[in-house]
Amino acid sequence: MNVSELGEFGLIELLAEIVDSTKNPKDASWQRLLIGIGDDAAAWQVDNGIQLATTDSLVQDTHFDPNIITWEELGWKAIAVNLSDIAAMGGTPKYALISLALPGELQTDNISSLYQGMVQIANRFGVAIVGGNIASANKTIINVTVLGSLESASALTRSAATPGDRIAVTGYLGLSAAGLSMLKQHLEFDAETTQLLRQAHLKPMPRVDEGQILLRHGVKAAIDISDGLISDLTHICQASKVSAQINQNALPIHPALKNNFKSDYLQRASSGGEDYELLFTASSQTINQIKKAVSCPVTIIGEITGEKPWHVTLVDDNGRSIPLQKAGWEHFKSQT
Amino acid sequence: MNVSELGEFGLIELLAEIVDSTKNPKDASWQRLLIGIGDDAAAWQVDNGIQLATTDSLVQDTHFDPNIITWEELGWKAIAVNLSDIAAMGGTPKYALISLALPGELQTDNISSLYQGMVQIANRFGVAIVGGNIASANKTIINVTVLGSLESASALTRSAATPGDRIAVTGYLGLSAAGLSMLKQHLEFDAETTQLLRQAHLKPMPRVDEGQILLRHGVKAAIDISDGLISDLTHICQASKVSAQINQNALPIHPALKNNFKSDYLQRASSGGEDYELLFTASSQTINQIKKAVSCPVTIIGEITGEKPWHVTLVDDNGRSIPLQKAGWEHFKSQT
Repeated sequence: MNVSELGEFGLIELLAEIVDSTKNPKDASWQRLLIGIGDDAAAWQVDNGIQLATTDSLVQDTHFDPNIITWEELGWKAIAVNLSDIAAMGGTPKYALISLALPGELQTDNISSLYQGMVQIANRFGVAIVGGNIASANKTIINVTVLGSLESASALTRSAATPGDRIAVTGYLGLSAAGLSMLKQHLEFDAETTQLLRQAHLKPMPRVDEGQILLRHGVKAAIDISDGLISDLTHICQASKVSAQINQNALPIHPALKNNFKSDYLQRASSGGEDYELLFTASSQTINQIKKAVSCPVTIIGEITGEKPWHVTLVDDNGRSIPLQKAGWEHFKSQT
Repeated sequence: MNVSELGEFGLIELLAEIVDSTKNPKDASWQRLLIGIGDDAAAWQVDNGIQLATTDSLVQDTHFDPNIITWEELGWKAIAVNLSDIAAMGGTPKYALISLALPGELQTDNISSLYQGMVQIANRFGVAIVGGNIASANKTIINVTVLGSLESASALTRSAATPGDRIAVTGYLGLSAAGLSMLKQHLEFDAETTQLLRQAHLKPMPRVDEGQILLRHGVKAAIDISDGLISDLTHICQASKVSAQINQNALPIHPALKNNFKSDYLQRASSGGEDYELLFTASSQTINQIKKAVSCPVTIIGEITGEKPWHVTLVDDNGRSIPLQKAGWEHFKSQT
């Protein structure tokens, strides 16, 4: 079987099994480990708290097209997607290491711009860029590792959703996917919409403050939306051994999305990916407290149930099931 | 100017300047930082010690040829080169994150073997593999980040060499470069030599224990030999603002190298690269104590001087300067 046939998530499962079955559980590093492969970030106990670590790559032609994104935006985004993983654990990002694979013919001005974008977002979140690596390759790959810490005694995880929890999401869904279509298909909108969609896709703002607020309000289960709402909620279902029901009409849709993508805005919101919003589960009461504490919209979109087989159902206002056309996307499989 | 013209080290310098000139030094992360861009690993203060972090990539066709190295060896080596960076700081490696960029048509059995090799060396050094990322790309790139810690109040660094220090090296030099030639040119040797050279190039053993012993004996300046003796010693000279004189005839040459590469064994030892031995500076007395404490050879090969312009001179037994034909290698430039 090849990598493409097994798919990204199958491969992660396979590798996690190899590591788990061959590790030496007596090693101090394993004994201190709280969360390993399979969540947004790894977490382990240190003397006075919890350390978080995550790594993510942007690969030319897979994740970005240099004709669409500027190098500065690319630098921002490469850091942002990692900060989003730290946000999904409720943590505070602290340090970043940057590993670049670059074609020799690339202009150094572009790499300077890339770093300018990285520094912008790093400064905004108090993150220090402390090291990295540079290698030669035929396409550009930007790999970022971010280390962070947790104030709390435990992290937000994918595996803590409980039947009866409501499901909520920060911000709006589908804007990033709409931005990608706009940029790829040269769609024209008014200046404000253009700016909104461009920003959503190319310069996402990780929900770092919001993640910490969730944790302080007692939320246990969260993930950031990178693959798409349905796909990422499925990750929560599988990790928590629960199911989820989403009311399609409850999804937070920005008017700019609804007005300009009339035929498929719901599809984009449920499966678009790269929104980098936080998806979490908690009681209605907790979610209502969080709504008051954060400055972005927070919307209840469904609830967690105990029924097998640990999957996501999309329903309309009458509770009728709507077929899932496309459960997000994963690498190695066809992408929009 | 393009990346190839500026070269790897020029690019690192440029990016370090961007980060340094734009950072917010009041951020807690920066205030706790001890060693940033430009050493083998980054180091920062944590509540009860020092945290170390390093990242390094192996890129297909740049760093490895899948026709030469097995996937298991590749997994070992990808972790080993990072452990070597932690060793060069005197640290203890603890956690690893693995970021893979893979072609879809790659067989999953190969990736399983890759991870088997990773787990082998991780278990040997008590390192837990705790997370990572998988992306699609047209060639295989393995990026590893290793986090470690320091028992001591300060790390071994490139910048702490002092005039009058002797220069010493662990193990033998040039075996890895000889191994690469053997594998690429299908050279035939006796079984023992073949095994030695193959192992040196494909399954290097990072000097983790030795790095910690150096630190405990009061050594201040060290680097691991990845680019080649001359090149890595030049890194020490530039970071420490000193010069270095090496006696070519003092280099530790394994008989298997000398006997089988008669015409260029000295060239391989001085510039071959990828030996992953530790190069360090200290007083003769300290080095003699270290010789007794470690189980590998430790050889004094020269001394640190105060003369500008912070470079490396190679001399013969009579102190006569020998021209440097090739000062190691760097990415983006021609490689052997």
